[in-house]
Amino acid sequence: GPAVIDYRSLLPEDEFHRLADATIHDLQEKFEEYGDSVQIDGYDIDYGNQVLTLKLGSLGTYVINKQTPNRQIWLSSPVSGPARFDWDVATNSWIYRRTKVNLLQLLEEELGQLCGKPIDLS
Amino acid sequence: GPAVIDYRSLLPEDEFHRLADATIHDLQEKFEEYGDSVQIDGYDIDYGNQVLTLKLGSLGTYVINKQTPNRQIWLSSPVSGPARFDWDVATNSWIYRRTKVNLLQLLEEELGQLCGKPIDLS
Repeated sequence: GPAVIDYRSLLPEDEFHRLADATIHDLQEKFEEYGDSVQIDGYDIDYGNQVLTLKLGSLGTYVINKQTPNRQIWLSSPVSGPARFDWDVATNSWIYRRTKVNLLQLLEEELGQLCGKPIDLS
Repeated sequence: GPAVIDYRSLLPEDEFHRLADATIHDLQEKFEEYGDSVQIDGYDIDYGNQVLTLKLGSLGTYVINKQTPNRQIWLSSPVSGPARFDWDVATNSWIYRRTKVNLLQLLEEELGQLCGKPIDLS
């Protein structure tokens, strides 16, 4: 089931949207640049309804979306499965509490491996 | 991590797309009808890049997408979290192996609760 929401530590909703939108839009731009530099059949990016989709053809599909009630960014990765990231004030980054992994670092590692070329998302 | 893929039991890719697309398009239509009958601020449906998004305003966002490499439909639910559904030939339905739950039944139960009105997705 979902993590219990600790309402005392919730970001204000407008602050959450500002931070999450900035991250998601930045990812979209970097995925677009990256797509020009790799040769992946079916590489396709879509942003709609606050959901960012990165299709890598037969390699699978990444989905990144905001989950506003718990102030999280949710990721579906064809490599590592699902993960949910909270904003970490100490490091100014999105962190998956269970594994302490950083959203951008996770994507850098997986995409670099999958597509055979480093990607800088920070 | 992700479930191990048993390649011997994988659906042919075209069969997977046919079944998954039929399910996702049917859900989209039923969500559209349902939206006309409930009063939820921010109720919004989007289908793009083979990802179906159902936004329920402050109640959260459902994301439903195909994950072609493992022939699954993945769901992100703001109520129950992530789940991955395989096509079950015996019952002609999408089943989450770990919990044996049926995709359509799960959505019926959660949406009925969240929105306060039954929805028939079968």
